[in-house]
Amino acid sequence: MSLTPEQIDQFTAFAHQLARVAGEAAMPHFRVPLAVVDKGKAGYDPVTVADQGAERAMRELIATRYPGHGVLGEEEASVTGSEPYTWVLDPIDGTRAFITGLPLWGTLIALNDGARPRIGVMNQPFTGERYLGTPNGAWLNGVPIATRPCADLAQARVMATSLEIFTTPALRAGFEAIAGEAQLLRMGGDCYAYCLLAQGLVDVVIEASLMPYDVQALIPIVEAAGGRMTTWDGGDAQHGGAILACGDPALHARLLERLRPYVDGQP
Amino acid sequence: MSLTPEQIDQFTAFAHQLARVAGEAAMPHFRVPLAVVDKGKAGYDPVTVADQGAERAMRELIATRYPGHGVLGEEEASVTGSEPYTWVLDPIDGTRAFITGLPLWGTLIALNDGARPRIGVMNQPFTGERYLGTPNGAWLNGVPIATRPCADLAQARVMATSLEIFTTPALRAGFEAIAGEAQLLRMGGDCYAYCLLAQGLVDVVIEASLMPYDVQALIPIVEAAGGRMTTWDGGDAQHGGAILACGDPALHARLLERLRPYVDGQP
Repeated sequence: MSLTPEQIDQFTAFAHQLARVAGEAAMPHFRVPLAVVDKGKAGYDPVTVADQGAERAMRELIATRYPGHGVLGEEEASVTGSEPYTWVLDPIDGTRAFITGLPLWGTLIALNDGARPRIGVMNQPFTGERYLGTPNGAWLNGVPIATRPCADLAQARVMATSLEIFTTPALRAGFEAIAGEAQLLRMGGDCYAYCLLAQGLVDVVIEASLMPYDVQALIPIVEAAGGRMTTWDGGDAQHGGAILACGDPALHARLLERLRPYVDGQP
Repeated sequence: MSLTPEQIDQFTAFAHQLARVAGEAAMPHFRVPLAVVDKGKAGYDPVTVADQGAERAMRELIATRYPGHGVLGEEEASVTGSEPYTWVLDPIDGTRAFITGLPLWGTLIALNDGARPRIGVMNQPFTGERYLGTPNGAWLNGVPIATRPCADLAQARVMATSLEIFTTPALRAGFEAIAGEAQLLRMGGDCYAYCLLAQGLVDVVIEASLMPYDVQALIPIVEAAGGRMTTWDGGDAQHGGAILACGDPALHARLLERLRPYVDGQP
């Protein structure tokens, strides 16, 4: 079921509220220098505290405002709603970036209407950047964004978060096949990479081992900006797994062809 | 020759001025479509209008204010000064980050007194962050920063910009030896990585194939914050090459030992 114009406005406004409370919960724990000895299971782990606090704050707001909605989040158990709507949350996507002080992590918030994620937010509170995708368009801080045309891999800028996410030889080989022919490869993007793609600054994001909460908020942003985002075999990206996002749909079609030999090897 | 207290203050104030004009020249070109020229033969080495404009602006300011000083920059020919002081400039360190929209590039400015870089600035105008190292200390936007103790590689957070910089098997193997035992590896840091190390958020930066202008501004920041930064064989880092920076001098000493087998293979 798709959303009415009123629902889009209402849920979008609410997603902004969620982004705000998550950012307020996470930011006090960002770039807190710690002696290594303070870390460990018994001690204060800033990313865990920030993750849990940000998700808790969002869940409380959802339970109050939309008690019939479901919640799928990274840190706590899923809540099945009485209505078809589910909020899909990753309080801190990019944990390694968060831990090392890089401003490339983000809070991911998606509203899934039971069929697909329809509204997506990526909020980066340190830089003050909030990306939004809805059925009406894609924006960065209220300014419309769009992908750029780039149908040729040899001209393309490619991003992936890390090599470790390619957990099988086939996944690694598929990644290498794409990365090896690109104009430029840049590792370490996390959710930020998809937003830069939506903004027309990156052409391809190729990843694997993703969870639904890693991707759902990014799908409306990428698609509303003109891009395509699927699994490597061309399936629906919302369930995660091995993901290919391209700013130019023509490049996406070509790269799915290129990835075909590697898809059989996927788990 | 070391600097007098008056020189430190004067040159530091001037370095801030250079950072400001470079940022003003670069920022209008950040996150807008750029004409990218391939200046390298062996690899993709993009040069942007922003690079050239920012270096030009700094060189003009130096020629006006300190006509007797030398200039070593990435984009234009070196100027040998009549005085022993040389400004070492990288207008945009992290060109790949810049062209893909990541806020991890920086303008690097060092004042070398003829013996060593004594004052260093890393300026990131998008996030509004300016790191400064002088003989008097290290700061981020005026707030003192310091490395954290971390003598054990198994507890350490390691950064390196990309695998491509390890251009020989020995360099790559040395990097792998360190990265493989670290608690966490994060690629894609550029100059930002050294500053996060100075801030106590990252423990090791290990790189190779660096130029003098890639490192000179970072040495005063890392050292004044309590860290150590040398070549892999323990030599002076100011000439670039294969570089190891650690927040904890004890870890630095250990890792130099670990790197010893790989040093002979260096160019």
